[in-house]
Amino acid sequence: MATSEQLAARIEQKLHQAIDRSCKPGAPPNLGKAMGYAVFPGGARIRPNLCLAVAASCGDDQPDLADAAAIGIELLHCASLIHDDLPCFDDAPIRRGKPTVHRAFGEPLAVLAGDALIVLAFEAMARQIMDAPARAAQLMRIIAGSVGMPFGIVAGQAWESESDAILADYQRAKTGSLFAAATEAGAVAAGGDSQLWRIVGERLGEAYQVADDIQDVVGDAALMGKPTGVDATYARPNMVAQQGLEGATRHLKQLVTDAVDSVPPCAGQSMLQQMILNESRRFAPPPSVVQAQKAGHDATSLA
Amino acid sequence: MATSEQLAARIEQKLHQAIDRSCKPGAPPNLGKAMGYAVFPGGARIRPNLCLAVAASCGDDQPDLADAAAIGIELLHCASLIHDDLPCFDDAPIRRGKPTVHRAFGEPLAVLAGDALIVLAFEAMARQIMDAPARAAQLMRIIAGSVGMPFGIVAGQAWESESDAILADYQRAKTGSLFAAATEAGAVAAGGDSQLWRIVGERLGEAYQVADDIQDVVGDAALMGKPTGVDATYARPNMVAQQGLEGATRHLKQLVTDAVDSVPPCAGQSMLQQMILNESRRFAPPPSVVQAQKAGHDATSLA
Repeated sequence: MATSEQLAARIEQKLHQAIDRSCKPGAPPNLGKAMGYAVFPGGARIRPNLCLAVAASCGDDQPDLADAAAIGIELLHCASLIHDDLPCFDDAPIRRGKPTVHRAFGEPLAVLAGDALIVLAFEAMARQIMDAPARAAQLMRIIAGSVGMPFGIVAGQAWESESDAILADYQRAKTGSLFAAATEAGAVAAGGDSQLWRIVGERLGEAYQVADDIQDVVGDAALMGKPTGVDATYARPNMVAQQGLEGATRHLKQLVTDAVDSVPPCAGQSMLQQMILNESRRFAPPPSVVQAQKAGHDATSLA
Repeated sequence: MATSEQLAARIEQKLHQAIDRSCKPGAPPNLGKAMGYAVFPGGARIRPNLCLAVAASCGDDQPDLADAAAIGIELLHCASLIHDDLPCFDDAPIRRGKPTVHRAFGEPLAVLAGDALIVLAFEAMARQIMDAPARAAQLMRIIAGSVGMPFGIVAGQAWESESDAILADYQRAKTGSLFAAATEAGAVAAGGDSQLWRIVGERLGEAYQVADDIQDVVGDAALMGKPTGVDATYARPNMVAQQGLEGATRHLKQLVTDAVDSVPPCAGQSMLQQMILNESRRFAPPPSVVQAQKAGHDATSLA
């Protein structure tokens, strides 16, 4: 079975191919640059890595289709970051340790770069339909559902504009949906069981959201490459505000354990469980920061 | 063969079904409302009508796939209108005779409604992949290409942010690409000749763009349901500014004639040619307005 390094290399290669196709001679050059800027260098690429790891665990008999699903998910994630950072939402100055797209390229190109990345994601998946049409049709609907209305990340972002959002619904749509799509689409691409794998993604997505809430409260902006304290500024629901740092950390630990336990028996079971544990350590804020903010409370032992 | 009224009814019905799926209980209600507001009541629905008319002329043996292509194109068109109207572009107050989406629902929901409509367009097409996978794969790539980078409407909009745009490239991407996709995808959905039909759409798209340039100069904002004089305000390329009203009108007339002449021999040839002539009359500014602006110049006899 492919190592995580090999899977990660596949993702970068396919992302470069997709962005290169968008930036042909004759295209508006600054929009092409803005798209590349938003996608490279990436963050942890958690979602596409997860997608390909699940596909590998299910036999990976249609690797090009699995790759298309993985980069489709990552391109959609990058698009959502660009749009969420816009002045009408967070007006975030920094993302992944550098100026956000609208700060670097202006707001018009930021709106368009997000739009173009959404289209590119579906175009990349449409290219692989003939590899295995039934699987492609299923995974495209899964991924579209995880991004659009009624329950995808766009819906999650919209809950911030609604007066009576329920925390669990909001987080499930805003963060959980794309994690669930990553594991489910990875399974579908390789002919695996979509429902069993979806549960793994749902639990991981929930864990990631709680970790994000914790980081927003106790994280260090410079280390994380993005601003903190945003939820409080915008009066958004946050698990730490609701349950305290200790409660939120305990909840996160349980969610990671649940995610590990939900990995179905398969060739790559132990690799995947190890990957989840590794990622969950990355979720956690650096120990020094937590110590400084809350002496005596150990928020870093997550699993 | 279906009448234009029957085709128009199919489009409205399928658009309603798609928007209704997006607005299920549990979805953020205001985003659902913003999406419906952007799509209903529609404009002339020129692009989806054209798509279905071409599919009908090619035999329409996969009507659900043709419908998915048609409403995909219309949803993408509506999304582009929402985003193009945003404050960072035109900051348009009025569209289709009512406040623009960001004026009615606020900028955050306008950004998200555009995003959600893009995703919905591809989700609608993905639903029909198994009807005829090879055709679906081809038409999804055609439609994605007509919207995204390097040569789709997003690229066209981006040319407005570039310092050295070429008028023909800009207009081909901004307006022509979705017309060309409408005829090409209509043909592909029904197993017709994609290249012959693409030419019809390209010519119509060019005609529509010239008509739009003329309307921006001499049109009446109240009659058209959107502001005029926008190109001059933003120093954008405009055919009337380049060739004068008479030159632009002559050019438009020729383009419509070329479009009519390019309709390939088929069962619906005369219906389609008549439809193009009817639409081209709708392109033209009302005679009274043109008379008032430029006495003695008849810009309304377009074909």
